[in-house]
Amino acid sequence: MPSTYPNFRHSVAWLILLMEAVFIVLSYFFASDVDAGFSYPDLQAVSHMLVFGFGFFLTFLKRYSFSSTGFSFLIVILGVQCSILMENVSVLLTEQSLSGTSGAAMSMVAVVISIGAVLGKMNPIQTIAMIVVEIVAFYVSRWINIYLLQASGHVSMMHVHLFGAYFGLAVSSRLSEPPPRSEKNASTPRSDLLSMLGTLFLWVFWPSFNSVLAMERNRAIFNTCLALAVSAVTAFALSALITKDGKFRMTHIRSAALAGGVTIGYAADSIEHPWIAMLLGLLASAISILGSSCLQTCLPTLKTHDASAVHFTFGLPAVFGALAEVVSYVMKIQTTLPSISYEVILSVGAPCFTISAALITGLITGLILNFKLLKPIPVSKYFEDQMYWELFEA
Amino acid sequence: MPSTYPNFRHSVAWLILLMEAVFIVLSYFFASDVDAGFSYPDLQAVSHMLVFGFGFFLTFLKRYSFSSTGFSFLIVILGVQCSILMENVSVLLTEQSLSGTSGAAMSMVAVVISIGAVLGKMNPIQTIAMIVVEIVAFYVSRWINIYLLQASGHVSMMHVHLFGAYFGLAVSSRLSEPPPRSEKNASTPRSDLLSMLGTLFLWVFWPSFNSVLAMERNRAIFNTCLALAVSAVTAFALSALITKDGKFRMTHIRSAALAGGVTIGYAADSIEHPWIAMLLGLLASAISILGSSCLQTCLPTLKTHDASAVHFTFGLPAVFGALAEVVSYVMKIQTTLPSISYEVILSVGAPCFTISAALITGLITGLILNFKLLKPIPVSKYFEDQMYWELFEA
Amino acid sequence: MPSTYPNFRHSVAWLILLMEAVFIVLSYFFASDVDAGFSYPDLQAVSHMLVFGFGFFLTFLKRYSFSSTGFSFLIVILGVQCSILMENVSVLLTEQSLSGTSGAAMSMVAVVISIGAVLGKMNPIQTIAMIVVEIVAFYVSRWINIYLLQASGHVSMMHVHLFGAYFGLAVSSRLSEPPPRSEKNASTPRSDLLSMLGTLFLWVFWPSFNSVLAMERNRAIFNTCLALAVSAVTAFALSALITKDGKFRMTHIRSAALAGGVTIGYAADSIEHPWIAMLLGLLASAISILGSSCLQTCLPTLKTHDASAVHFTFGLPAVFGALAEVVSYVMKIQTTLPSISYEVILSVGAPCFTISAALITGLITGLILNFKLLKPIPVSKYFEDQMYWELFEA
Repeated sequence: MPSTYPNFRHSVAWLILLMEAVFIVLSYFFASDVDAGFSYPDLQAVSHMLVFGFGFFLTFLKRYSFSSTGFSFLIVILGVQCSILMENVSVLLTEQSLSGTSGAAMSMVAVVISIGAVLGKMNPIQTIAMIVVEIVAFYVSRWINIYLLQASGHVSMMHVHLFGAYFGLAVSSRLSEPPPRSEKNASTPRSDLLSMLGTLFLWVFWPSFNSVLAMERNRAIFNTCLALAVSAVTAFALSALITKDGKFRMTHIRSAALAGGVTIGYAADSIEHPWIAMLLGLLASAISILGSSCLQTCLPTLKTHDASAVHFTFGLPAVFGALAEVVSYVMKIQTTLPSISYEVILSVGAPCFTISAALITGLITGLILNFKLLKPIPVSKYFEDQMYWELFEA
Repeated sequence: MPSTYPNFRHSVAWLILLMEAVFIVLSYFFASDVDAGFSYPDLQAVSHMLVFGFGFFLTFLKRYSFSSTGFSFLIVILGVQCSILMENVSVLLTEQSLSGTSGAAMSMVAVVISIGAVLGKMNPIQTIAMIVVEIVAFYVSRWINIYLLQASGHVSMMHVHLFGAYFGLAVSSRLSEPPPRSEKNASTPRSDLLSMLGTLFLWVFWPSFNSVLAMERNRAIFNTCLALAVSAVTAFALSALITKDGKFRMTHIRSAALAGGVTIGYAADSIEHPWIAMLLGLLASAISILGSSCLQTCLPTLKTHDASAVHFTFGLPAVFGALAEVVSYVMKIQTTLPSISYEVILSVGAPCFTISAALITGLITGLILNFKLLKPIPVSKYFEDQMYWELFEA
Repeated sequence: MPSTYPNFRHSVAWLILLMEAVFIVLSYFFASDVDAGFSYPDLQAVSHMLVFGFGFFLTFLKRYSFSSTGFSFLIVILGVQCSILMENVSVLLTEQSLSGTSGAAMSMVAVVISIGAVLGKMNPIQTIAMIVVEIVAFYVSRWINIYLLQASGHVSMMHVHLFGAYFGLAVSSRLSEPPPRSEKNASTPRSDLLSMLGTLFLWVFWPSFNSVLAMERNRAIFNTCLALAVSAVTAFALSALITKDGKFRMTHIRSAALAGGVTIGYAADSIEHPWIAMLLGLLASAISILGSSCLQTCLPTLKTHDASAVHFTFGLPAVFGALAEVVSYVMKIQTTLPSISYEVILSVGAPCFTISAALITGLITGLILNFKLLKPIPVSKYFEDQMYWELFEA
């Protein structure tokens, strides 16, 4: 394998160049007006989250920092072009852009979340194959959400967390498991601190993310701020309660601090009382931390390797957020509206559909990624920068 | 003590959860319109300063980086809720919000400055107790400044540096002194660089901070930029003059680069000539560096341990800024206005009152924090992440 | 030398103080209205690029991180005052500001690029001397570009990359060459990662930079985003093709990711089809990486030491961007306009003039910097923080 690997690496380069050529040629034919709905401040906030936030959120592995930052950057810039192409296809088919350039960038969050689940376990060709499939699948799923299930643009975009997390987990379940106590699958205080920097970037820009497509932007921002604050505070408390000797665990803080922002996503622009946003933040944090602790002790059989705990950071909190939205609809029926039961069914159906779509396409993708042609990397080479980067000192 | 410490840590968790429950319940009763004066760009700038700026400004200790970043994050998000509550109380009592959500976030600067003075010397329960007392005290002091001393909202907010620095120093004077040459109370080049990153975040966003509540925002921004630039340049020059063999000292640069922004705070929106702003920046830097050098040699008896040199970064420059404002009033009397002597007296009185209030409440808080019940940490355990965080490698 | 060096260091301090005094006195006489065209968001974006972007872009040397970040900060804040002064001189002479405060800050990019070429090889006095000469030369060159060659404010500002790179290279060619395999002239994975953080800051804020003085800001932003994305993707592909065993090299990614933004600068606001912007990004990246590989093998005689590869990051891509603009004019002649041949000549002449001016003034400056009076540092002391900073641990 070492002798053929350089050739394989070159094929990565040609694949990337080929894709880039395709994008340029296609952009010639699509005389796009994607830039019509182009808002630079929104795009800036989303790109801060993608480039700094997720780029450094993933750098916690001690020997994988170049790949974490570098590949997530590569994936974002390659994926966003793929995503803009899908927007153009959507314009071609339905004469309507789904959500413009900012939306194309926001869709990349699904991809980066999935990367978090399989971090360090795939080579660049597998990664690129995965993101292309995922972007197409996510766009189809959004299209169905919007045109068949009548979800709003904002809500269908918030499924980005659900889709990303469960797609990533499904792919991860098809890859060989790393040995449980791998020396390389660990963090150092320094890499944890860098990862905390990434988390803080995500945390600070999350209100922007939740408000880009929202109807009432100011309310969405305010509610998201509240939920994020409460969920981060709760993270500290629960982390100390869960760990053996009452110390804080950085992984808990990282996951649960963001959980509130994920949960509040769906309803950020419709919640009218601050206390509801705060309560959702608290519960999201609890679900994230307790869920991680319960699932690992109660259901070890269900466990798939989840490198960055994306299930507990994005998956479960998003499920909970979707549930909370259903409850809010049900409560509205009892009080004001006589017959929005159709809306209730849809608000149950949309997330269920998204999760199913993510799991099914994820499993299929995972099977494809194991093809010999794609040269899946052996378990002994997991989590190593040295495979892909010139390093002059360890 | 080791055997009882886990129990103690759990009580931290319950305390945090209890506070969070109180905040949620109270937010139910206060049907708040705090979000009326809610400006997201302002809030973003302030949260960048608090989360990135102060979070990393404090990471210079070699074994305390998790706690520096993590606890300052915890304190900001817990404190800002406390602060919003105080805004609501203010609305209840006076039917007027002091300064809205952005103001609530800006008040947190006082807290984070105080944390800088006692960094590494208090356990989380002491820290939480301190910030709650400090926020209440700061709000009462602002209330008196605004309603009794007729200070403007902007000026009363600029007292945040004065209050934070002297409150922190007063608390610090009541805590046991760390041994003078503690191996742990030191920085490494790497932690210093991270701290420089934090300082640069503060430096870049300082003009936003000085302009949030200012009347003439553009002038406040322009003057602050000038003062910051000159004070940072001067910092390099004076650092080389002060140190033994003419080398630059990172601590000097960090302190003095920010001193100009602190000093110009009061008058940023009223200074009409750029040269005045530049001169204030130069003098602020000089006061910060020479003050630190003089006080340590001339008045060693007055010295209290000041972990992050907050006295020279925020305290002295703020005093100088207040003095400069008095001088500007006095000069106006001589030239244009016949009888604003009342204003002069107030501009002397307000900072004096704020400093006294900070020192008195700080001393009382310091005494309370030494109660056995709060389990003050022994000097040998100062400056150690290991006390509070799960660390897998040193 | 060690015995006299502290005295020399003190003279750095006095030089800085003297300059600061001159700036303050002159700002008293220039009753400036520079702040008329003052846009804080623009200034923020540029200062993010200068302080975080370039500050950390240059921190890749293993023992020079304090100086990289610290001195580039010093140079920016000292230089921007010098630059504002030149704006004022320009107002005095022509009754018109060249580009206001934001433009003064943007001009600093030339200086920081030049610093990149000579990184670690000059003492602070040489550095300060260099930047003062460079700022004056760049302003004169812009003045000639605008008033004699009729270039627009935007285009003349985009020459900042050309001027910075070739001025820096010319200066560097006059300094003694460091030994080819110096142990200190190397990076560690950690310093490379920090440098990547700086690069990402530059990358994210580049669209703002290209649009500050552009006529059609939204188009400039959109085209720059496209070019940057394509050039970063191409960087990964070409890096894997060029290196011996198909691995990615961080230096390639850093250089080529930015090349697209540099190239598109000139025409960002006039390109009408996204595919042109994307193609320019791809070619810029290719020129950056292939150029670096070709020049080092084909023309070793031409090679001057270029510490941060500024020739391939900023120089060549800017030349290519200027060429692309000429081509676009030529094509316009063939299609729509009968006689803009004068414009073609100017669009050839302006960059040629800028490069010549940069090379000539750079060579002269390099000669001056070798004067004994300025105490050029010996080769053995290159790339060392210890010369200028108090370090308590290596």
